[in-house]
Amino acid sequence: MDNRAIGIFDSGVGGLTVLKEYQKLLPHENYIYFGDTARLPYGSKSKETICNFSKQIVEFLINQNVKLIVIACGTASAMAYNTLQKEFSIPIIDIISPTAKQIKDDNIGVIATKATIKSNSWEEEIHKYSPNTHVTSLACPLFVPLVEEGFATSEITPLVVKKYLSYFHEIPISSLILGCTHYPILENVIQDELGKEIKLINPGTYSAIYAKEYLMQNKLLHSQSSDGNIIFYSSDNEEYFKNIAETFFPIHNYEIHMEQMKA
Amino acid sequence: MDNRAIGIFDSGVGGLTVLKEYQKLLPHENYIYFGDTARLPYGSKSKETICNFSKQIVEFLINQNVKLIVIACGTASAMAYNTLQKEFSIPIIDIISPTAKQIKDDNIGVIATKATIKSNSWEEEIHKYSPNTHVTSLACPLFVPLVEEGFATSEITPLVVKKYLSYFHEIPISSLILGCTHYPILENVIQDELGKEIKLINPGTYSAIYAKEYLMQNKLLHSQSSDGNIIFYSSDNEEYFKNIAETFFPIHNYEIHMEQMKA
Repeated sequence: MDNRAIGIFDSGVGGLTVLKEYQKLLPHENYIYFGDTARLPYGSKSKETICNFSKQIVEFLINQNVKLIVIACGTASAMAYNTLQKEFSIPIIDIISPTAKQIKDDNIGVIATKATIKSNSWEEEIHKYSPNTHVTSLACPLFVPLVEEGFATSEITPLVVKKYLSYFHEIPISSLILGCTHYPILENVIQDELGKEIKLINPGTYSAIYAKEYLMQNKLLHSQSSDGNIIFYSSDNEEYFKNIAETFFPIHNYEIHMEQMKA
Repeated sequence: MDNRAIGIFDSGVGGLTVLKEYQKLLPHENYIYFGDTARLPYGSKSKETICNFSKQIVEFLINQNVKLIVIACGTASAMAYNTLQKEFSIPIIDIISPTAKQIKDDNIGVIATKATIKSNSWEEEIHKYSPNTHVTSLACPLFVPLVEEGFATSEITPLVVKKYLSYFHEIPISSLILGCTHYPILENVIQDELGKEIKLINPGTYSAIYAKEYLMQNKLLHSQSSDGNIIFYSSDNEEYFKNIAETFFPIHNYEIHMEQMKA
């Protein structure tokens, strides 16, 4: 038993889709979520910058006495996971490797931010476990601002989704990884564009499954049988963050803080 | 005569539209441009955060020994200009007040980022000089990512522009201020949507006119008669910055540096 919280971080609110998957599978855990809203988005920035931002956040979460750190952000998973693992002794779980281990498919598509696609992390990680899988990757950089600006249900979104994803009509894929935490919010539009025969994969689910196994095997689960709580930190715009977080987690024991990052 | 450079900053590449206007009017000046590509965009962030970022950049430019600082960024002009003026003795010129002083019109529209519109700076500044002018403001947050992601000439852009600007079909305006440095890049699409009878106003032009007068009156112009040079700094992704800057300024004496901001 380990009654400390799980730390989880993202560039902003997108990682709440990952936290949601964790809460479904591990409802008795307490969580400390950090959204770096002052410096988002990460998806267009360099590896060096994303590693620097991620290290600061990991240090912050360690100071909050967490037992495990989850990189919810797809871009930080792609760019900073290896660096963070080398520099910190605390267990760290990303969203890419747990997913790559589990998926079995001959033809997989990956959509993500520019930085994630450029890093080639998804393809490399999938090939570690399934060397013959054919991976087709595509950056969809407008998806994040569409979600952030509240266009998810606008009539423009299917047009933008079509513009990007028509790419896959020429390429045989049987499943598509939603490689950025914002993309599950566009799941219905994406499914409509691709057709129901293509399976959409939310990496947050696989990350949560992996984390549950890890905590069980290492006897690190929380001992409480009641629902755990969540403490939210955001580096900017608490109100904006709170409004969105409350639609994801309409819970009563709500706590949100502003925490400025000093570099 | 003052042969020091003019410092100019923006959240990223958008401010190059302002630098272009300065270079047209003041071609013999040297410029030091800072693009905060590691922390862009500013348009969705809080006043406190934008003031902090802006102060750091002004300090950096002062250390480069500039004679004048231009806030090219519309959001930083709206949120940080007053604070910067109070805290620093170096002359600082923004893009809002020089424009507000010059425009004469009964019905003016303003489009800008969320933060700029929320600040109400355009309306307040215009009313200082023209208290009876009717100002109608509208945030168009998707315009920046459309430009940044290279969608400026895509068929999606007119749809997004229509979605936002149809608002003005119900409201009588005779001119529209492009209150964010990225928007002049969408000028043609915006003009097509609104019709040719509506005058589009680029605040970079008015800022440059004001700066030229200021430098002349205070005998601070550069003494050289040849074209000045530009030194670029970006806080991330030098290559991305360089590619875009070169399309704006295809000049031979090109110099670009990466400068990480430490807070």
